[in-house]
Amino acid sequence: MDNSMLAEHFGMSSAWEQWLEMFIGTESRHFGFDVETGKRHHTLVDMGTEAGGKALEAAGTTPRDIDLIVMGTATPDQLMPATVNLIADRLGIDDVASFQLQSGCSGALQALDVAHQMLSTGRSRNALVLGAESVAKHYDTNMDFGNTDSSYAVNTLLFGDGAGAAVLSTDPVTEAAVLHPPLVRLVGMGHEPGQVVEWFGAGDRGLHDQQTGGHTAVTEDYRAIENRVPEMANEVLRQLLENLDWDETEFDYLLPPQLSGRMTKAIVDSLSVSDIREISRVREIGNTGNAAPFFQLERALPRMSRSDRAVCISIESSKWIKSGCAVEKV
Amino acid sequence: MDNSMLAEHFGMSSAWEQWLEMFIGTESRHFGFDVETGKRHHTLVDMGTEAGGKALEAAGTTPRDIDLIVMGTATPDQLMPATVNLIADRLGIDDVASFQLQSGCSGALQALDVAHQMLSTGRSRNALVLGAESVAKHYDTNMDFGNTDSSYAVNTLLFGDGAGAAVLSTDPVTEAAVLHPPLVRLVGMGHEPGQVVEWFGAGDRGLHDQQTGGHTAVTEDYRAIENRVPEMANEVLRQLLENLDWDETEFDYLLPPQLSGRMTKAIVDSLSVSDIREISRVREIGNTGNAAPFFQLERALPRMSRSDRAVCISIESSKWIKSGCAVEKV
Repeated sequence: MDNSMLAEHFGMSSAWEQWLEMFIGTESRHFGFDVETGKRHHTLVDMGTEAGGKALEAAGTTPRDIDLIVMGTATPDQLMPATVNLIADRLGIDDVASFQLQSGCSGALQALDVAHQMLSTGRSRNALVLGAESVAKHYDTNMDFGNTDSSYAVNTLLFGDGAGAAVLSTDPVTEAAVLHPPLVRLVGMGHEPGQVVEWFGAGDRGLHDQQTGGHTAVTEDYRAIENRVPEMANEVLRQLLENLDWDETEFDYLLPPQLSGRMTKAIVDSLSVSDIREISRVREIGNTGNAAPFFQLERALPRMSRSDRAVCISIESSKWIKSGCAVEKV
Repeated sequence: MDNSMLAEHFGMSSAWEQWLEMFIGTESRHFGFDVETGKRHHTLVDMGTEAGGKALEAAGTTPRDIDLIVMGTATPDQLMPATVNLIADRLGIDDVASFQLQSGCSGALQALDVAHQMLSTGRSRNALVLGAESVAKHYDTNMDFGNTDSSYAVNTLLFGDGAGAAVLSTDPVTEAAVLHPPLVRLVGMGHEPGQVVEWFGAGDRGLHDQQTGGHTAVTEDYRAIENRVPEMANEVLRQLLENLDWDETEFDYLLPPQLSGRMTKAIVDSLSVSDIREISRVREIGNTGNAAPFFQLERALPRMSRSDRAVCISIESSKWIKSGCAVEKV
């Protein structure tokens, strides 16, 4: 959905459309729901299943090969069951360790981190890692932009729906564990959930007025975000390169934080790196939260030659988490 | 809050009170809110901070020693920031890897598992692991038990609030990692959240009628749970003992699933173990979800002698996850 379609739906002017393009810096985004009716046609389960299935296919891995599934999301379909377990069920993945992280923009890297650690110990060999967002429950399709606090309107303009996935695989690493290992196995394949707990967002009809007791459902401190995020991006980049013993010229692709087109540009401009190829998707698909790094990796990997290195950075502004990872083509 | 207090609040008879005691098997529970007014006096952050602080004190660990924090919960205060990050802030824990699992009754063991794995790789040395629940957002303090579907009423009778925590510590294990490690650092201490996303539960006034579009916010398939959980508990116990190379006589304490007093008894009766000391808390504090295993461990550990072994089992019925862990006193 491009900005002119948004402007038309919300009855806004072409000046507003241009403001949106310049101030937010996002040109289009995907939604898993019809913005006219609010009806969802792709839930988080739907999108995660499609992304997960494509990742399995691309990796030449069957659902039976998977022994670990980890997902990050800020917008689960329901509180319970965790969405990851419904995706596993749809994909035919069963009897595996399963984790869903409640996370924001750092969630994809947190999920990769959990999987990477669990592959490192040798307990798991093939992990399916997902990041996905569905903003439908927060989206007020009747938003009146003339009379709405801009902080509250942000998810209507900043975010887009999407899901990404990757298969992580490695040979087992033998290790002596001192403590007895806990055991977690998802065994729900083919079984209906025994318990379902729904939750409700600001987009649910009439909710944001009388139900919140004066609390706004979504707030953002833009000033704090604009102030802190570039600095945090710099810090995590330096820390990551130091951990890897790489200097600033020893990587080829930069996958920067995907807050908005304008913020991403400000961050990249602030990083003291030159002659680097930037891979960003935020202008075309919006801020897809936990899914964003997967969309960047999807674009970067086919372009990378042998021994090329990519560094991905993500910053979560909710309570300030900085994260990053490096990928090397071998 | 005991059953007579619940009966009085909801205007129910002493027969109902006895039915509750027999059918659910829970005598009392704690709430972080006033059942008369619905007003919360202990949020999940409050309870988690108190439990986390006590765990640090009991372990003789300072917040600065902690390099990893992992929490499991089905009932976060907000979707963002993840509650664990607000607890870290209150405790003075900063610049650490941080994870919050969206999880049900298996969540405490999932959180212990993530921490255990990350200690095993040697990347972390001291982890604070938490499990906590606050049912306030789902709790309808005006429930009419005479006219309410029993499946919907369940969280009013089954669940209780609580938080548990443990410090996991070990010497580092050196290990050669094949992939470049991702990096996740929470750095929010002392900073207000940059983004807050609220959510709404069935307990929010008037919500469960007009807002759900005919969906019930909380449903349970009792029959499926009663049928599957004892079998799953047996399976995970056998699998855990096999992994540890222990036979059924080689452990001393059993910490069984804490669904309800009646279900816990049925599960323990179904397990083919004899001469075992059971540690259950569900009758006195209700089903505390992600917190329950910590309440059991708190009771078990001081009773255990050197070389005593305890096995903890938890089953998540939402999408059927079986989990367990073993603790040995050394």
